Amino acid sequence: MQKINLMEKFNLFDQYWTPKIVGELNDQWVKLAKLKGEFVWHHHQAEDEMFLVVKGQLRMQLRDREINLQAGEFLIVPRGVEHKPVADQEVHVLLFEPKTTVNTGDLRDEHTLEESEWI
Amino acid sequence: MQKINLMEKFNLFDQYWTPKIVGELNDQWVKLAKLKGEFVWHHHQAEDEMFLVVKGQLRMQLRDREINLQAGEFLIVPRGVEHKPVADQEVHVLLFEPKTTVNTGDLRDEHTLEESEWI
Repeated sequence: MQKINLMEKFNLFDQYWTPKIVGELNDQWVKLAKLKGEFVWHHHQAEDEMFLVVKGQLRMQLRDREINLQAGEFLIVPRGVEHKPVADQEVHVLLFEPKTTVNTGDLRDEHTLEESEWI
Repeated sequence: MQKINLMEKFNLFDQYWTPKIVGELNDQWVKLAKLKGEFVWHHHQAEDEMFLVVKGQLRMQLRDREINLQAGEFLIVPRGVEHKPVADQEVHVLLFEPKTTVNTGDLRDEHTLEESEWI
């Protein structure tokens, strides 16, 4: 058991849209991701997904509106809801999601990561 | 679906050691708590518990050592591990835990909350 310092962990990687695992509890992962640019529209069939913005500003596009998240704000996207994260500038987020979650949800394309890396 | 601003939610309550629910996903709660003083030794039989410090400094006492958490750091206390949170000054934490978690774990005493409140 050891504590995790978010900033130290964010300093360990540079790639965008590649969430890294930093914690495990109750069959859930805690992940950190750096986002920049536009992701793809997707949804998760059986998993709710939480985005907590640690740095920057995240625009979460939904089919009927957009939710603008600042540092210190989080959003839980319920299963089944289509969403598309957009980061005009670099954004750092903490994600909380079941181990079964695939980053692109129902969609399989070049953005899909089959497995996340522990850092 | 709406975003949650941590600071706004922390401003809604004053009581110490009474975690408030601010989110729900995958049968887990996201809770916020204000801590000050010493809690009681306890463990959770079947739940891992995550403490993310948002403000202040938390001393997590374990039977064999103490882990000092600053803002921007988190600790996952695995099920079965006895722990005692101590806050010399006011601390704000975000908690992730299964819905089945009772704040005092195996222990039932005057600190025990049978139900947490949504804010």
